[in-house]
Amino acid sequence: MNKILIFGVGLIGGSIALAAKKSAFASDVVGVGRNKDNLYDAIKLKLIDRISDDLKKDIAEAHIIVIASPVAQFPSILKTIQPHLSSHTIITDVGSTKTDVIKSAKEILGLQYSQFIGGHPIAGSEKHGAISAHIDLFKNKNVILTPDEDTSSQAKETIETLWKNAGAVVSNMSYVDHDKIFSTISHLPHLLAFSLVDMITQRANANELLKFAASGFKDFTRIAASSPEMWKDITLANKKFILEDIKHFENEIKLLKEAIEHEDIKKILTLFENASKTRNKWS
Amino acid sequence: MNKILIFGVGLIGGSIALAAKKSAFASDVVGVGRNKDNLYDAIKLKLIDRISDDLKKDIAEAHIIVIASPVAQFPSILKTIQPHLSSHTIITDVGSTKTDVIKSAKEILGLQYSQFIGGHPIAGSEKHGAISAHIDLFKNKNVILTPDEDTSSQAKETIETLWKNAGAVVSNMSYVDHDKIFSTISHLPHLLAFSLVDMITQRANANELLKFAASGFKDFTRIAASSPEMWKDITLANKKFILEDIKHFENEIKLLKEAIEHEDIKKILTLFENASKTRNKWS
Repeated sequence: MNKILIFGVGLIGGSIALAAKKSAFASDVVGVGRNKDNLYDAIKLKLIDRISDDLKKDIAEAHIIVIASPVAQFPSILKTIQPHLSSHTIITDVGSTKTDVIKSAKEILGLQYSQFIGGHPIAGSEKHGAISAHIDLFKNKNVILTPDEDTSSQAKETIETLWKNAGAVVSNMSYVDHDKIFSTISHLPHLLAFSLVDMITQRANANELLKFAASGFKDFTRIAASSPEMWKDITLANKKFILEDIKHFENEIKLLKEAIEHEDIKKILTLFENASKTRNKWS
Repeated sequence: MNKILIFGVGLIGGSIALAAKKSAFASDVVGVGRNKDNLYDAIKLKLIDRISDDLKKDIAEAHIIVIASPVAQFPSILKTIQPHLSSHTIITDVGSTKTDVIKSAKEILGLQYSQFIGGHPIAGSEKHGAISAHIDLFKNKNVILTPDEDTSSQAKETIETLWKNAGAVVSNMSYVDHDKIFSTISHLPHLLAFSLVDMITQRANANELLKFAASGFKDFTRIAASSPEMWKDITLANKKFILEDIKHFENEIKLLKEAIEHEDIKKILTLFENASKTRNKWS
C-alpha cells in the first residue's frame, strides 16, 4: 500500500487519486496545489485524504509523487521536490509533451533522474478541476510512459501498476517518438481548429457565418474551445515537431489547392477517398 | 393539398416526404430515383405513396418537384423535367452549392426559371438512404432559400411553407452569398479534415498514429468520413470561393507558423484566445 502525493488535484490528478484509492493501490493520498478552493473540493469529494500541511515531510515520505499541475509549473515543482526526495520515491507526470519534461527532470534531479518516468494519459476533456474527476476517466484509455536507459525498473513497474489499476492500457515509447506522434494527431489538429475559428472571428460577417455553421463545423472546431494557456505551453514545448507538421500540412493543402485550380478530378477524388476510407476504417 | 414529386428519396428527400405528409401539406408523394432498392425501402417505410411509373404524367401533374438527388445529376434531371413542366408547378432543390444549380436552372428552364427556387437544408449527416430518413430531421434547423429577381412570389411562398411545415427555420439570401458563407463554414473545414487524414494515411507509421488518436482527433476528422464523390462535386461547384478561403487559411497558418518560429507568445496566445472565446460563446 502506497502513500501518494499529488501536485495538482484537477481532472487528471483527482481521477488518479480516486482510482488509486478504489483499487487499494494507495493507502494515503495527499494533495498539493495553488488553488485552495479546488483542494477543498478534492477533500469534500473524497479524492484525497488530506491537504499537505508539511510539504517537505510529505515529499520525503511519499512512495509515489504524481505531478499533474499545468506543464509550465513542472520545473519549479521538481525543484521543490528535489532537496527532500528519498531514494525509494518514484515520480511521474501527466503532461501532453514529454521532451521538455524529461529535459527538466534530468537537469533538476541529476542522479536521481532514475526515479522519474514521464507519463501521458490520453484522456483529457474540456472539463477542469477536482469536481470533474471520476473513477472511470482512464478505463480502456491509452497511457503512454516514456522511460529511457536511465529509468529504474522500479519506476517503470510502479507507474505501470498505478495506471493498470486505473483501467488504462499502458504503452512504452521514447519521449521523442511520443512528441512526434502527438504533434501529428493532437497538436496539429488543435492548431488548425484554433486557426479556422480565428480566421472566421476576423471576418466582418463573423456572426452571420457562425449563425449558419452546423454540426460538421461544431465537431471540427470543438478542440478550438480548449485552454489557450495550456495550448500555448504545448505549442512552445513541442515547437520542433509542430513546425515540421505545419510544413507537411501546408504542402498537403498546396497540392489540393493546385488540384482544384486545375480541376484535376482524379487527384481531388483520390485524396478524399484516401481520407474517407481511413477515417471510416478507424472509427 | 399538394402532389409532390421527389427525385432522390434518400435521407433528405425521404425526410421531406415524411414531413410533408405528416403536416398534411402533401396529399400524394411520388418518388423517382436510380436506386430501385432504395425506392422500395421508401415505400415500405411509408415515406412515399408510390414510385413513379409514368414520369411525364407525374411531372406534368406535380404541384411541387423536389430535386434531392446528388448535385451532379441536377442538370440531366432538369432536362427530363423541362418538356413536361406545367405552368403551375414549383421546383426546388436541396444542393449544398447554389451558384451552379441556379446557372443550370436558368439555362435549362429558360422563361420557366421563375418557377424554380434554390434551397439548402443545413441538416446533413454521414447517414444515407431512405432508411435514414426521419420526421424531425429539419426541426429547428436552418434552411436557406436563394430566390432572385426572376423568382415568382408563388415559388418563394410555396417552398417556404414546405420547409416551415417540416419545422425548419427559413432564411433567404442570394446564391452568391450562400456559396461564400458555406465555403468558409463547411467546405473549407471538410477540405482541411480530408487533408489531415490523407496526410496521416501517407505516413509510414499511419497505424501507430491512429492507434493513439483520441477524442479530439475523432471529432476534428468526423467530416473526413463524408462521401468523396459528393465532396468532389461540391469542391468543383464552389471552386472560386473555396480557393479564396484556402488562400486566407494558408495565410492564417503562415502567420501562426512564424509566431511559433519566433516564440512570439503574445501572438500565439491572442490567436488561441480569439478562437477559444468565439467557439465557447458560439456553443
